[in-house]
Amino acid sequence: MITVNLNYESATSLYIQLYESIKKDIINKSLAPDSILPSKRSLAAHLGISVKTVENAYSQLLLEGYVYSVEKKGFFVSQLSDYRTPSVRTRPYHSKYQDEAYLVDLKANKNSMEMFPASTWYRMMRETLSYDTSRLLDTVPFNGLSELRIAIARYLLEFRGMTVSPDQIIIGAGTEYLYTRLIQLLGRNTRFAVEDPGYNKIRAIYQSNEVFYEAIGLDKDGIRMDFLEASDCDVVHVAPAHHFPLGLVMPITRRLELLSWVNEKKDRYIIEDDYDCEYRYHGIPVPPLYSIDVRGKVIYMNTFSKCIAPAVRISYMVLPEELMEKYISTMNFYSCSVSSFDQFTLAKFMDGGYLERHINRMKRFYVKQHNDFIEAISHSSLSEKSQVIEDAAGTHFLLKVTTSLTDNELIQKLREKKILISCLSEYCEHHNPAYDATLIINYSGITAQQIQYFVETLNGIL
Amino acid sequence: MITVNLNYESATSLYIQLYESIKKDIINKSLAPDSILPSKRSLAAHLGISVKTVENAYSQLLLEGYVYSVEKKGFFVSQLSDYRTPSVRTRPYHSKYQDEAYLVDLKANKNSMEMFPASTWYRMMRETLSYDTSRLLDTVPFNGLSELRIAIARYLLEFRGMTVSPDQIIIGAGTEYLYTRLIQLLGRNTRFAVEDPGYNKIRAIYQSNEVFYEAIGLDKDGIRMDFLEASDCDVVHVAPAHHFPLGLVMPITRRLELLSWVNEKKDRYIIEDDYDCEYRYHGIPVPPLYSIDVRGKVIYMNTFSKCIAPAVRISYMVLPEELMEKYISTMNFYSCSVSSFDQFTLAKFMDGGYLERHINRMKRFYVKQHNDFIEAISHSSLSEKSQVIEDAAGTHFLLKVTTSLTDNELIQKLREKKILISCLSEYCEHHNPAYDATLIINYSGITAQQIQYFVETLNGIL
Repeated sequence: MITVNLNYESATSLYIQLYESIKKDIINKSLAPDSILPSKRSLAAHLGISVKTVENAYSQLLLEGYVYSVEKKGFFVSQLSDYRTPSVRTRPYHSKYQDEAYLVDLKANKNSMEMFPASTWYRMMRETLSYDTSRLLDTVPFNGLSELRIAIARYLLEFRGMTVSPDQIIIGAGTEYLYTRLIQLLGRNTRFAVEDPGYNKIRAIYQSNEVFYEAIGLDKDGIRMDFLEASDCDVVHVAPAHHFPLGLVMPITRRLELLSWVNEKKDRYIIEDDYDCEYRYHGIPVPPLYSIDVRGKVIYMNTFSKCIAPAVRISYMVLPEELMEKYISTMNFYSCSVSSFDQFTLAKFMDGGYLERHINRMKRFYVKQHNDFIEAISHSSLSEKSQVIEDAAGTHFLLKVTTSLTDNELIQKLREKKILISCLSEYCEHHNPAYDATLIINYSGITAQQIQYFVETLNGIL
Repeated sequence: MITVNLNYESATSLYIQLYESIKKDIINKSLAPDSILPSKRSLAAHLGISVKTVENAYSQLLLEGYVYSVEKKGFFVSQLSDYRTPSVRTRPYHSKYQDEAYLVDLKANKNSMEMFPASTWYRMMRETLSYDTSRLLDTVPFNGLSELRIAIARYLLEFRGMTVSPDQIIIGAGTEYLYTRLIQLLGRNTRFAVEDPGYNKIRAIYQSNEVFYEAIGLDKDGIRMDFLEASDCDVVHVAPAHHFPLGLVMPITRRLELLSWVNEKKDRYIIEDDYDCEYRYHGIPVPPLYSIDVRGKVIYMNTFSKCIAPAVRISYMVLPEELMEKYISTMNFYSCSVSSFDQFTLAKFMDGGYLERHINRMKRFYVKQHNDFIEAISHSSLSEKSQVIEDAAGTHFLLKVTTSLTDNELIQKLREKKILISCLSEYCEHHNPAYDATLIINYSGITAQQIQYFVETLNGIL
């Protein structure tokens, strides 16, 4: 007969204690496979508990398959081969993966925390909480809340001169997410062209998804048309308003060449990455390629992580109508990846005109950061060993230095001084000596003190 | 000489008016390609404006490439081939894509809005807003906030008997998102096995990503081991605690067979989808396969969309340590796709014990929904033409009906009566007559009135 120490004081109910006890006996073979269990009634009498308690324990064992039942005969022990339970870890958690701490991070390009319009944003959040609760828990359409798509379409018309229907917009949790979707939409046999140098993550995404890409060199106007023509690629990824990391603006002439290239074949497309279009310090922002595309060949990508805060994981893409139809017929089973709460909050933020104000404020801040940094260099003897390459836009500039060190050595020496920084060569697929010894200075979240420390440290190293 | 009507009253600054005007003349060839522009000084004098204004207009034209400059000579008009501007749409937005409106939706399985612990959730949001603002805008680690990963690890230990380090957890915006990552992590040459019938979206994701999958038939214990062995697949996707849509629980015997299969080869893995494990109405939840895997071969997937609300787009996967090391070395360039705000809010919700309470409340609610629905059927003459197949778990049951209609006709007839519903056959890759004429009743968000309407309507159709 089954023996079990039932604890009547325990928070665990009797039937679970009984179930656990029998289960243990089955696992360690105290109860032999295919042996019959006592009847509910007799076990209940034996243990001095109710038949219902035994019944519940047997039901759970049956449900999980530790016993099987034979009609009119009763419950039998299942045959378990090689059962093992992993040990339970109780030690406290210390992550194996710790980021190194740096004094100056010129790589991450974090937005300055102080510049985030926190009180306004939180007010929008509270308003969302108070007014829209009835809709907050509704399932979000696959392409995002219509409120937000309408706000984005209006924004694009007013600030980027783009005529976009909210039906063409797909909201997603980050541009990386949207790129993965695009690969599926365009098809895995698509041959992608990227700029070289260019944004590393795009290449990493193509690599991780095991699709073909070719890195195409640039001239002073951007991606080289002769290389592109020769590449046999179908889809080209460019950042015409502000190339990363070179800072080039693609002139209208090259844009027209690119459009005439894309119009040559049906399945050709241009992916336009307009990531920091808002931040041009003199004059007006450079219009997007999208605004002069009349045949629906430009896929437009942008993100709010850059202009609001990285923690706001909202990006969007504008698909030409033909591609949108294809997306709807093949990929609308994917749920929208951004919570409705965040979408309502951002829509309110945009509708209230706060995004525009925020961007203007950021622009003034970045101009000052940019000028302070360049001034600090020019006032130091570092200026004799380096040359600033900048175009009064975005949140970074390049610093070409005179050194016999390799890029790796340079990065390593700065890292030893707790400075995290990238070289232009890291963004190249093919080595180009013209791009050597060129540091990328991402200045968006840097303090005056950090600028000073960096300038002095680099000066000491060179 | 260039003529331009400058409007001194306009909100648009003079230099932008001048820039726009010259740009238009260049596009429509009023200014001939390669012709020289007037000098800044002479144009300024001609128009009666400052030289600085002309300079700004010329700079913007130069930046965008509408003109080019030749040293010591001046600015020249660029050669533009085939420039066209798309027309600006001003009509108001009416989406082309409108969802049909239904009286009863038995397909979506929406959580009941009234059951959402709104006031508690919003309180957590407010607390997040008031206390964590300093961290809210920080970049989130690629695998998610440590606070949330710690809360999930604790939850899995307490409620699922799983020993998991927070370092093994990756947070993502929905399970679909995580599946896409998994495909990249395991490699595109992986042969995936899925259950047939089974969750449609998994198949759609594999299809959309163009990776191989095989749909493997089931017996009463779940996925058939003989078919799996024969399939030559490496990775199998199962829902052992509660199969969708059949509702099967995989018994311990089959689980051990599956573990012995996965241990046979190095690159084999099991993806365990534990999507609604919390909702078992009698007894205790069925333990996960993960809890008896000692060799790190089970990838565990779960979501909070199901147990909190679909609008909460937070899912997670638990990777075996070996796979986590691989993820870190090849895929940690992907940013975390959930906003830090949502992650802080959920961590607070879990740490406060609210998730546990919410789940218990939901369970009582679903039991009632389940019983009410089945009772309504049994009290109607529909019971003579149908058979309920249910297992007292989850948020759906099956209704096998006696009819000469095909599944498509049945769905269509119900659709005409504004009822949206799925048949079991829609979840099958291979047709199996045993699964015909079986409706899937997702009852989670259905009202008593809707139940009544459905029962009467279906009764009328059969």
